[in-house]
Amino acid sequence: MTIRALVFDAYGTLYDVQSVLAKAEALCPGKGEVVTQLWRLKQLEYTWLRSLMLEYEDFWQVTGAALDFAVRAVGVEPNDAICEPLIENYLHLDPYPDARATLAALEGRKLAILSNGTPRMLQALLRNSGLDQWIETVISVDSVRAYKPHPSCYGLVEPALGIARIEVLFVSSNSFDVAGAKAFGFKVAWVRRAGAGGQQTMFGMLRGRAEELGHAPDHTISALTDLPGLVRAGE
Amino acid sequence: MTIRALVFDAYGTLYDVQSVLAKAEALCPGKGEVVTQLWRLKQLEYTWLRSLMLEYEDFWQVTGAALDFAVRAVGVEPNDAICEPLIENYLHLDPYPDARATLAALEGRKLAILSNGTPRMLQALLRNSGLDQWIETVISVDSVRAYKPHPSCYGLVEPALGIARIEVLFVSSNSFDVAGAKAFGFKVAWVRRAGAGGQQTMFGMLRGRAEELGHAPDHTISALTDLPGLVRAGE
Repeated sequence: MTIRALVFDAYGTLYDVQSVLAKAEALCPGKGEVVTQLWRLKQLEYTWLRSLMLEYEDFWQVTGAALDFAVRAVGVEPNDAICEPLIENYLHLDPYPDARATLAALEGRKLAILSNGTPRMLQALLRNSGLDQWIETVISVDSVRAYKPHPSCYGLVEPALGIARIEVLFVSSNSFDVAGAKAFGFKVAWVRRAGAGGQQTMFGMLRGRAEELGHAPDHTISALTDLPGLVRAGE
Repeated sequence: MTIRALVFDAYGTLYDVQSVLAKAEALCPGKGEVVTQLWRLKQLEYTWLRSLMLEYEDFWQVTGAALDFAVRAVGVEPNDAICEPLIENYLHLDPYPDARATLAALEGRKLAILSNGTPRMLQALLRNSGLDQWIETVISVDSVRAYKPHPSCYGLVEPALGIARIEVLFVSSNSFDVAGAKAFGFKVAWVRRAGAGGQQTMFGMLRGRAEELGHAPDHTISALTDLPGLVRAGE
């Protein structure tokens, strides 16, 4: 079956959420690494917990609440001087170095993003990074008021792109997202970057490995640049 | 409003899930602490993720999958010699030292457990620890095929006990459970033990603090033994 569209996760897959580290270290000296990691871990926990509590708040609010948690956890009371620059940084995350070349090499395919981010966050991110040059469709889970890996999120892709799920290659570095997308019925490529899953960081220990959720990806790649060859090989 | 029933969370609240540490260290020398913490963190993540994916598996299965993850994360391929003794330990967890005296002092109240555990796991745990002497009702989320903090879990309490939610004091040391129970409409006591929320462990950093989910507990106590006085003061 030909791949007619590539649908990318945004945070952690095309965009490096660890690129807030320098600013976190400048604002919380000696604690930037812990703040950055806790922030991301809690951000995801809160998407799951709020979905499960049936108390959806959008990703901008969840990201802010997770930042409050992370800052408090290192003994600092959250305040605008610290939190505003950090959360604003979420609109200016760096794309991974291999993102632009990969998207350029995939030109001619339908390229889309399916993300937990709000439409406003994603539009700002794409514009600020210039990736809007290649990504034609941006799909936010905000309209279904639940977060990945709820199947209703993945269910947004077929009507948005006008193609069937088996024609989609879903690309994510987040292992829970890989499991959710595969359970839904996409073909899935897991981007497992070198160094991910290490024992150096909480994030690496907890989220850098394959989940034991029973849905293995079709492909495991070590860089986005493996994608063009993988797509051509499937034809 | 008089408190007519106390409903306890089991794992982490009445029973010390860290009591598997000695066996984990014996089976994975030098790695027992990391395995124990990752196991518990992943166990909870998988309850949330499976609920969200609408792919419920029971808590015995989820606990086994989380153990596989934890063991693999420290570089060991899961095998029966390591995993069976550890998971069997989940039927023989130690109650916290203050659990028996607290339950004895609350005699005459309706005392119940609401837990993610399967009925079989909970019955074994209560029998093996002797807490079945005081706990008259054991409620497992297994019948609703979703995990806490989904509201359907807390919704099991009123029909099981024949009382209204505002007459319930829900007791948990798990901060996400505190948020879920409070959102549902129970009175809630958060057991925040001394040393919880420390920066020494991944578990302390991630789960030992109040969540930023907008539902503060009615009471924060540092030990279960604070409960009898708290209940009397409410009358």
